[in-house]
Amino acid sequence: MYNTKAYAAASATSPLAAIAIARRDPTAHDVQIDILFCGICHSDVHAVRNEWSDFMSTTYPIVPGHEIVGRVTAVGEAVTKYQSGDLVGVGCMVDADGTCPQCQAGLEQFCRSVIFTYNSPDQHQTAPVTYGGYANSVVVDERFVLRVPSNLELAGVAPLLCAGITTYSPIRHHGVKPGQKVGIVGLGGLGHMGVKFAHALGAHTVVFTTSPHKTEDALRLGADEVVVSCNANEMQKHAGSFDFILDTVSAKHDINAYLNLLRLDGNITLVGAPEKPMEIAAFSLLMGRRSLSGSLIGGIPETQEMLDFCGEHNITADVEVIPIQKVNEAYDRLLKSDVKYRFVIDLATLKAA
Amino acid sequence: MYNTKAYAAASATSPLAAIAIARRDPTAHDVQIDILFCGICHSDVHAVRNEWSDFMSTTYPIVPGHEIVGRVTAVGEAVTKYQSGDLVGVGCMVDADGTCPQCQAGLEQFCRSVIFTYNSPDQHQTAPVTYGGYANSVVVDERFVLRVPSNLELAGVAPLLCAGITTYSPIRHHGVKPGQKVGIVGLGGLGHMGVKFAHALGAHTVVFTTSPHKTEDALRLGADEVVVSCNANEMQKHAGSFDFILDTVSAKHDINAYLNLLRLDGNITLVGAPEKPMEIAAFSLLMGRRSLSGSLIGGIPETQEMLDFCGEHNITADVEVIPIQKVNEAYDRLLKSDVKYRFVIDLATLKAA
Repeated sequence: MYNTKAYAAASATSPLAAIAIARRDPTAHDVQIDILFCGICHSDVHAVRNEWSDFMSTTYPIVPGHEIVGRVTAVGEAVTKYQSGDLVGVGCMVDADGTCPQCQAGLEQFCRSVIFTYNSPDQHQTAPVTYGGYANSVVVDERFVLRVPSNLELAGVAPLLCAGITTYSPIRHHGVKPGQKVGIVGLGGLGHMGVKFAHALGAHTVVFTTSPHKTEDALRLGADEVVVSCNANEMQKHAGSFDFILDTVSAKHDINAYLNLLRLDGNITLVGAPEKPMEIAAFSLLMGRRSLSGSLIGGIPETQEMLDFCGEHNITADVEVIPIQKVNEAYDRLLKSDVKYRFVIDLATLKAA
Repeated sequence: MYNTKAYAAASATSPLAAIAIARRDPTAHDVQIDILFCGICHSDVHAVRNEWSDFMSTTYPIVPGHEIVGRVTAVGEAVTKYQSGDLVGVGCMVDADGTCPQCQAGLEQFCRSVIFTYNSPDQHQTAPVTYGGYANSVVVDERFVLRVPSNLELAGVAPLLCAGITTYSPIRHHGVKPGQKVGIVGLGGLGHMGVKFAHALGAHTVVFTTSPHKTEDALRLGADEVVVSCNANEMQKHAGSFDFILDTVSAKHDINAYLNLLRLDGNITLVGAPEKPMEIAAFSLLMGRRSLSGSLIGGIPETQEMLDFCGEHNITADVEVIPIQKVNEAYDRLLKSDVKYRFVIDLATLKAA
C-alpha cells in the first residue's frame, strides 16, 4: 500500500478537504494511474451529501470522482493492454464479476456485483469503500481502464467517462443515424454531449431548453434547431416528428409533452432520474406505438468505442478547469447550473498543494 | 341504399334498442356482408356512454360493434379478393387514406384519416357517422375485409378482430419466441387472448391477476404459472426475469411493480389505457435499460396474419354467446367482469326479431 493525496468529505454536511488515502500496490492485473484531470459529475454532489441514501448510503469519508483521465505509472505483471506512459481513463466502474450474462454482454453496469469507482465495497480491502478520482493516484484492474485517443485535449476528455458514455450509449442503442430527427432535452453536462454525438452521427439535432438564452450556444455545439420547451405553440409544430429524444433532465418536467413529439415507433430515453415518479399518460404511448426507456451509463466495450469515436470526430466536453481548492465553490455553482458545461479538476493543483 | 336492422343507443344514457339503419349499395370496391356474430368490446360501452368525449365525442344514434364475422352476400365489380359465400371479418377500421407512410407500412391504425368501424365520419355519406356490427348487414371496402379460416368456430372468431389483434400485435412486435418468459397482466377479454398467443408461440407464459380464483382457468388457457399480483413476496421472486410483459389492465395499477420484473432490455407494453396518468419511477427504467411502450390494435396485414395463425393453431376466444336482446344486460355484466371472456352477439337473433 501507499498513500496519495485526495479530497474527501467527512460527513454529509462537511466541505471537501485535503486528506491522505491508501491505495493498493498494483496486483497482477492492475494499472496504476497518475490522475491528471477529474470531472465533477452531479452524482458526486448527491453522493457527498448522501442524497441517494435510499438507493446507496454514503460511507464517510467519501472521495468522489468518476471522470478520470491520467497517465499510467506502473502495471502489474499480467497486464497486457497498457504500459507506463499510456494515456488512460477510468469511468464509473472499477470492477464486476466478469462472468454473469450482463458482463458477458459487455454491460457491466448491470452486473449485480459491479464495483463503482467510489463508495462501493472495496474488494481489495485497502479501505472500507472505493475512493474516486479527486486524488493524485488510483489503481484499477486493467479490464476497467480505457485507452484515451492521443489527439484530444485532456481536460475535455475527463467528462467523456461519465457524461459522454451516458449520452453516447442510448443514442447508439437506438440507432441514431443521418436523416433522423433527434431531440436533446436539457443543455447541461449531459445534454451538451448528447448534442455533439447526435450531430456527429448526422442526425437533424434539436435542443429543447427552458432557457432561450442558451440558443446561440446550442447552435454552436451542433444543434440544427432550438425549441423553447415552455412554449406550447413551438412544441406543437414538432408533433409526431421525432425518431428519438434523449431526456437528460433530472428536475421534474412533463414527459408527455415530449412523447407527443415522437413519430411512429419513436422512443424517448431518460438518462436523468427525477426524484418523484413521473406522470405518464398511457394514451401518449398507445398512439404511434411509442416507447419510453431508461439508460444507465454504458458498458466498458462501448465506453472504449465512444472514446475512439471522439478521437475520430475530435469531440471533447466543453469544460471549465478549476484547481481542486475551488471544488466546494464549484459544487455550489453546479447546483445553480452556473457552468459551461462541466467542471474539471486539474489534479496538478493537488500535487502542488 | 338499403335498410338493415341494428341495435343503437339514442343517447349516452339510453339503453341499446332496435333501429333501422341505412347501408350503401356496394360500390366497385365494396364487400357486402351478412353479419353472423359480433363481439362486445369494452370500447363499445365507453363509446355508447360517451366516456371518451375528450378524445372522440359520440354522435347519436350510435351502432357499436367492431368484432364482426359474417358471410359475403355481394361484391362490387372491382373486388378481386372476395366472392359471395366467403367467410370474412371486419375489425376496428373500415377505411384509411392508403397513401401515407403509416398506411404504406400496413399500420392503418395510425393513419390520420383512419375511419373507425363506428362513430367515425362516413365518407360515403350514407349516415352522419359509420355504424358498426350490432346489425344484420354491413358494407366495407375490400381492403378492410379479412379472410376467416374455415376451421374455426365462428362465434369465437369475432373477438379476434379486436381483442385478438390488440394482443397479437405487440407480442409479435416484441419478438416473443420459445425460451422467453412472458407475462400477461390481467385475465379478461384481452388478457385471455394474450395467454393463448404467448403460449402458442412457445413462451413460458405467466399470468398476473389480482384474483386467485382465476388460477385454474389461466392454466387451462395455456399459462405455465399464475402470480397473484397483490402478493409482494410472490412478485419479488420474479424480479428481473421477464423478457416481455403485456399489460391489458385499464384500471389504475402500479406499473413500477411490473417494470422491476423485467430483465435487461425487457419491455412492458400497455394495451389498456388507464384514465389517470400512471406514476412511473425513472429508476425502474434506468436499471436494466427497460422500456415501457404502448400498442394500438394492429394493421390490416397483421390482422390477416393473426387470423391465419389462429387457423393454424386452432385458436379462438372463449365466448359467451348472447341474443342481441340481452345486450344491455351484457354491458352491465361486462362492467362487473362477469364474463368468460367475451360476450358475442348472435345476429341471427336480430334477424328473427
